[in-house]
Amino acid sequence: MPDNNNPEIGKRPRRCVTTARWLLPTPIPLPGQRDDKNDSAKQCHGALQIGRRSRDLNPNAIRTAFTRMVHPHRASVAIAVPYLPSPHVPLYDGRVFNYDLRTSDTQTSARLGTFSTPHGPIDLPAFMTIGTRGAVRGVTPAQLREAGCQVLLANTYHLALRPGADIVQHHGGLPRFMSWNGPILTDSGGYQVFSLADLREIDDAGVTFRSHLDGQIIRLDPQRSIEIQNALGADIIMAFDQCVRLPATPDDLESSVARTIRWADASKRAHRRDDQALFGIVQGGLDFNLRARCLQALRDIDFPGYALGGLAVGESPDQMYDFLRQFTPTMPHDRPRYLMGVGRPIDILRAVASGIDLFDCVLPTRNGRNASAFTDARTLKLRNEQFKLSHDPLEAGCPCYTCQNFPRGYLRHLFLVGEMLGPILVSIHNIAYYQRLMSRIRSAIAAGRLADLLREFEEKTPSPDPEESQCSSPD
Amino acid sequence: MPDNNNPEIGKRPRRCVTTARWLLPTPIPLPGQRDDKNDSAKQCHGALQIGRRSRDLNPNAIRTAFTRMVHPHRASVAIAVPYLPSPHVPLYDGRVFNYDLRTSDTQTSARLGTFSTPHGPIDLPAFMTIGTRGAVRGVTPAQLREAGCQVLLANTYHLALRPGADIVQHHGGLPRFMSWNGPILTDSGGYQVFSLADLREIDDAGVTFRSHLDGQIIRLDPQRSIEIQNALGADIIMAFDQCVRLPATPDDLESSVARTIRWADASKRAHRRDDQALFGIVQGGLDFNLRARCLQALRDIDFPGYALGGLAVGESPDQMYDFLRQFTPTMPHDRPRYLMGVGRPIDILRAVASGIDLFDCVLPTRNGRNASAFTDARTLKLRNEQFKLSHDPLEAGCPCYTCQNFPRGYLRHLFLVGEMLGPILVSIHNIAYYQRLMSRIRSAIAAGRLADLLREFEEKTPSPDPEESQCSSPD
Repeated sequence: MPDNNNPEIGKRPRRCVTTARWLLPTPIPLPGQRDDKNDSAKQCHGALQIGRRSRDLNPNAIRTAFTRMVHPHRASVAIAVPYLPSPHVPLYDGRVFNYDLRTSDTQTSARLGTFSTPHGPIDLPAFMTIGTRGAVRGVTPAQLREAGCQVLLANTYHLALRPGADIVQHHGGLPRFMSWNGPILTDSGGYQVFSLADLREIDDAGVTFRSHLDGQIIRLDPQRSIEIQNALGADIIMAFDQCVRLPATPDDLESSVARTIRWADASKRAHRRDDQALFGIVQGGLDFNLRARCLQALRDIDFPGYALGGLAVGESPDQMYDFLRQFTPTMPHDRPRYLMGVGRPIDILRAVASGIDLFDCVLPTRNGRNASAFTDARTLKLRNEQFKLSHDPLEAGCPCYTCQNFPRGYLRHLFLVGEMLGPILVSIHNIAYYQRLMSRIRSAIAAGRLADLLREFEEKTPSPDPEESQCSSPD
Repeated sequence: MPDNNNPEIGKRPRRCVTTARWLLPTPIPLPGQRDDKNDSAKQCHGALQIGRRSRDLNPNAIRTAFTRMVHPHRASVAIAVPYLPSPHVPLYDGRVFNYDLRTSDTQTSARLGTFSTPHGPIDLPAFMTIGTRGAVRGVTPAQLREAGCQVLLANTYHLALRPGADIVQHHGGLPRFMSWNGPILTDSGGYQVFSLADLREIDDAGVTFRSHLDGQIIRLDPQRSIEIQNALGADIIMAFDQCVRLPATPDDLESSVARTIRWADASKRAHRRDDQALFGIVQGGLDFNLRARCLQALRDIDFPGYALGGLAVGESPDQMYDFLRQFTPTMPHDRPRYLMGVGRPIDILRAVASGIDLFDCVLPTRNGRNASAFTDARTLKLRNEQFKLSHDPLEAGCPCYTCQNFPRGYLRHLFLVGEMLGPILVSIHNIAYYQRLMSRIRSAIAAGRLADLLREFEEKTPSPDPEESQCSSPD
């Protein structure tokens, strides 16, 4: 429970003195408590109480209380962190980051789970809708909720430029600033090393950008990226990494992996807020051994979640699928796995089948703005003459606000006359389509029939539209 | 009740053969019915049944049934029309257009009333939010409802160009096309005679426009305007008129009034749908006698509502107020009075005090898109540096979605980075602000203290911002 009399509230966060790892290997029940799931929550709360009462955050007191529980049918890992009040953010109320693996598919490597955060749970596999600059383009938080969104992604580089991390922090962090009462993930700016390749100089310590807005010089390195992300206050933040376009030379890949590992270590050491989970990013292109080396190095540093960066950045979808099929099962089973910047529905299904839990992509919103609507059967290009007289919703049976209210003919009209409502309504549909897709994926995993769902999509999906397969382009 | 076996359904409407006026001067109860309000509804329904059963719409049968009732404390006028099925629109279910004057203010000429339409009642005084091309810019129908909107305005000229009246009709008319389950008013295109002055040639029979989109030649005259509005299917439609910029020469005003009267007569004769109320428009600039002559001519033609056009088109606000104060009380007491294209909150309050019931203006949405937010105290220009750190909502106590969720600092950020959400959220606030203003006006009239509310606004309102006082510019 938040303590409103706590003198720490409103102060800048202290450096956390504990060196206790977030993940503790063996269950250590508190006296008189049974080792079951409900009690584990009490144990964690107990630890937090200890931390709060003693105020010195004694690592051993915390270590003795945080618990890993392995149930017969599920692997549940408490990635708990001590209580530490943070400035201007909703008071961290003692909930812990927790990855709860509920089911593994028998026919594929798919996993069904939940990642708990201070702003609520994320049902995995999950798709994060992108709000680069602290807003999903044209869609309000209420509409995002109605469309089924649980978690959003915002961008460190863009928010650092405008309005500036200090301004977001002044407003209580991203969740309050943008009024999204749910989990948010911020990327680290590492992706802009790739996407703004013409505007940056890279060295071993970090990256110097010339602002795409006014030419202003901006320096990003692991320390600065994490400092910004600590100020932005998302539940999940990302280590600063170096993403390279594929195909790349072995030397380029090697040096990007070396930097990514060094920067991951520096990111973790720079991280100051215990109500944020810092995920590591694995680089290494399509080279299995290089990726494996990178992953091992990151595991040695230890992160509560691992992302695959540097995919969908120039290689073919088939190359990516082959790589994912081999590599994903080697990633830690007890942490969420995040495939950055992917992708089309078929990409997501194949990646889920290989064991990925978390996705983000600009496709639903960018395509929505460009009059392109997702349906199971095909992508509808709404400016097309054929929709002029159509009374049909975008997709029959879709429960989204757009499909429940507007015929295709009206949506076409909105795009032809340039009304903002067109991009808004098709974005809403596309966001809801992706969230429904994830919901169907989760149901299929629970029912042991993800392979059937994947086959269904493979049969329906036409050969990829090159314009659409590049998911990783900026929002 | 709709009759699903009626062979007329789906056919094009026949010319209504009755010459019965919509408004009948004396109550003529049907046999065995008492002359009270509930019975009047039965009488009207009875008339409709007669009309439907006999299918010849005998004027006398209708005349004997439609009733005007005057209650001791209210003037209620049944402006009923015979049943006539219309193509592709929700079946007209026998409800009547009805202006119900509930209270007249004692200190001012303000009126509190309700105008009933087939798509629901409009509480008067009312402000219509503008959706020129069949959409309020950036705001969904659900958000409009939440902001308190009852009635929208759409534009005949713009919809005739794109998508075309036939397309809207094919989609079931405007209410279905744009999914607005409430009353809509379409203007006649007469305003474009004024606003597109460089792109049109005017003659005694009508106006020839060169499309502002592609130079295509478009002819609008009373017949065509009404034909388009019949196809668009709004509950309230407007006679085709000629609006002139002020100041104008006496000759120009005289000729515009002569045309407006001829065109009003032609509009009424061209009107085919009895589930739409056709309002007349009074022109004549600031010349009281000319306006009075125009009004009398329109009353001779007889319309269920009268609008004042050609105001807020170049004269000063004070000139307009003076004119309204003199002229409005001479307008029929038993019909709604609509002041077209006005205006700022203070304009609306003064016009209400002079007896106006209905308003429309682009200010809430256009200002919203331009980062300008209405509050009682002042207009906030949200790009201003002063809002950078503001945690405040746009207006304390405002119940709108924007004020309940977003600080000014966030809204400023959205405008500075060019996020669509900025225009959307401030439009929502401004629309809600106007609807709340109308609600406060109605409450004040009911409580007999409109004069106090007007004084309150007069004290608060700074001298008019010239940029803002031109309300009648295009959406």
